[in-house]
Amino acid sequence: MPLVSRYEITVEWGDCDPAGIVYYPAYFRWFDQATYRLFLAAGLKRDDVSSGQWKEGTPLVGAECAFRRPSQHGEKLSIESRVEKFGRSSFIIRHVFRDGTGAVAAEGTETRIWARKDGDARSLRAIALPDDVKHRLGG
Amino acid sequence: MPLVSRYEITVEWGDCDPAGIVYYPAYFRWFDQATYRLFLAAGLKRDDVSSGQWKEGTPLVGAECAFRRPSQHGEKLSIESRVEKFGRSSFIIRHVFRDGTGAVAAEGTETRIWARKDGDARSLRAIALPDDVKHRLGG
Amino acid sequence: MPLVSRYEITVEWGDCDPAGIVYYPAYFRWFDQATYRLFLAAGLKRDDVSSGQWKEGTPLVGAECAFRRPSQHGEKLSIESRVEKFGRSSFIIRHVFRDGTGAVAAEGTETRIWARKDGDARSLRAIALPDDVKHRLGG
Amino acid sequence: MPLVSRYEITVEWGDCDPAGIVYYPAYFRWFDQATYRLFLAAGLKRDDVSSGQWKEGTPLVGAECAFRRPSQHGEKLSIESRVEKFGRSSFIIRHVFRDGTGAVAAEGTETRIWARKDGDARSLRAIALPDDVKHRLGG
Repeated sequence: MPLVSRYEITVEWGDCDPAGIVYYPAYFRWFDQATYRLFLAAGLKRDDVSSGQWKEGTPLVGAECAFRRPSQHGEKLSIESRVEKFGRSSFIIRHVFRDGTGAVAAEGTETRIWARKDGDARSLRAIALPDDVKHRLGG
Repeated sequence: MPLVSRYEITVEWGDCDPAGIVYYPAYFRWFDQATYRLFLAAGLKRDDVSSGQWKEGTPLVGAECAFRRPSQHGEKLSIESRVEKFGRSSFIIRHVFRDGTGAVAAEGTETRIWARKDGDARSLRAIALPDDVKHRLGG
Repeated sequence: MPLVSRYEITVEWGDCDPAGIVYYPAYFRWFDQATYRLFLAAGLKRDDVSSGQWKEGTPLVGAECAFRRPSQHGEKLSIESRVEKFGRSSFIIRHVFRDGTGAVAAEGTETRIWARKDGDARSLRAIALPDDVKHRLGG
Repeated sequence: MPLVSRYEITVEWGDCDPAGIVYYPAYFRWFDQATYRLFLAAGLKRDDVSSGQWKEGTPLVGAECAFRRPSQHGEKLSIESRVEKFGRSSFIIRHVFRDGTGAVAAEGTETRIWARKDGDARSLRAIALPDDVKHRLGG
């Protein structure tokens, strides 16, 4: 059974564009924030930087989102997140956004890998998803 | 033949995260900027706000991106954009990012509709893509 | 007595830069969000867009911030906000950020005007701050 | 004589808010980008991350901006940047934005320090501005 986390955001003034609705890259920022909450709910610290330097974490290899209903400034959206598939190094997180009426405002997925970096961006490489991480996320 | 536009961006310090690579929502900002350039190349003004108010434009119904190679601060990426499919109201724009080595750094699509809004966000509705717009974009 | 509001934010992964600390424009986004909460606490809706179009609101004429202590991903910051000066059309809001130790992480001000817009950006003009707004904010 | 650099930006759709004008934290992103260009013009690489890890760079201790004229989507702004004061570790960069009419759209300063970090955010500390950096920037 996958672990499910819930996270609520407010659509801020600066999240919206001149059409008066959410500027769509904001949904992907919320995806990333929601995945962080999913890890916290699992008792994990995603992309630990407490040493001051990032060595290991969860970069993206893909992301997609369907935008169902436009939202505007001041609305609250609740996001439900869970891992829907585990690979050797990769895992897919599904995020579903609902607005105040309960309607789905947006939904999509992030495909992440577990990765390590020893030098610059070019040195980033996939490693096996740790068993403990997989287990805590419900895999 | 679809119209093809090219747009170059620099990966800015603020586009990158503590892992030292592009924070992925930035690619979707660049998608949006690249679509704007595609419209300019077609002699069109996307999402006109010169009246001070937005009435008609091109909101998203979907977006997806595959991240092939991480990029870091100071790199230049070139983006090639074209419409790859036209529907009645919707159209799909493909964006391909290449880094300085010519390798594909990221690629994906935006699915947009032609839409009008007469009141709040709830009033947004799809309308037919104007013939002139379709023609200028190569459809 | 000025009305004082409190707002808590989490430093998100995407708020930080490759130095592993908050990318400074984020503080100004939090300023703007905190001012919105101050208005909500006063029973006011700042920059109403429920009609679908913005006509009147509170654009900035100045902003400044002193950054006292760097913060990193996962930290919670509490922001205390109040109007510290009222003019005819303008007003100055002071924001003080404290981290988990109680230390001031950042502090600064926004100078806003009450304004109306009838056409494009050039038509924006200052108008007198409504008495009710001033009264509710403690002026 | 201070070195002066010029940098041109386009006001993007996503830089603007529901009032149809620039969302003000964007000016501070442009400040940061303009300072990066000033360093490039001086033959310097600010905040080098080519090793994959940030050790030394130029964090902010203060920033302020006066917003003179609102700008909207599609406008081009030119930014002129120079160091206006050098301290032992700190230096103040002035940025002036002009719109297409030549009018000042915004102007302000960043106060930065030269700093090093050996561990987490708390370990960040000011060090003396290298002579070569000061010299190249015109100090």
